[in-house]
Amino acid sequence: MDSEYLGYAAGILTTVAFLPQAMQLIRTRQARDISLTWAATMTAGVFFWLCYGVAKQSVPMISANGITLLLLLVILFIKLRYQDSTDTGEK
Amino acid sequence: MDSEYLGYAAGILTTVAFLPQAMQLIRTRQARDISLTWAATMTAGVFFWLCYGVAKQSVPMISANGITLLLLLVILFIKLRYQDSTDTGEK
Repeated sequence: MDSEYLGYAAGILTTVAFLPQAMQLIRTRQARDISLTWAATMTAGVFFWLCYGVAKQSVPMISANGITLLLLLVILFIKLRYQDSTDTGEK
Repeated sequence: MDSEYLGYAAGILTTVAFLPQAMQLIRTRQARDISLTWAATMTAGVFFWLCYGVAKQSVPMISANGITLLLLLVILFIKLRYQDSTDTGEK
């Protein structure tokens, strides 16, 4: 099997994965179980992947990381906006 | 600037980001706000990245995705194990 297919499958999966996560946070407006450090570090990391894609002039890297970055910004925004929302289940 | 540094920074950030997320879930044993679809799709995607790294014989890809996969398996396990835990704040 052409190993490039593995890369395409991986890139598509790790990009579209963020759509249901962002949708869930938009719907529930609760993000207590999302680590702020995860969200911030991932946003920075994916931004660097995007820059790397630009430097390499790689359209797949730019498009995949551009989409992921947008979804991560939504997740980060909701985390920052609603992290203090009242929740009696919080420890 | 050597663009390879962007790639290294991106790879390190998007790998270590999963450590605080996994730690938070281990500590709180609550994962309601984590999307199961996100966790499952990311796990599959990172597994494919790992296979791609093996096919390409890329040590950085293998090590980064190997670590991320382990942390994602922890996240997925806690999500599946505790997703039905009682939480009065749940909608």
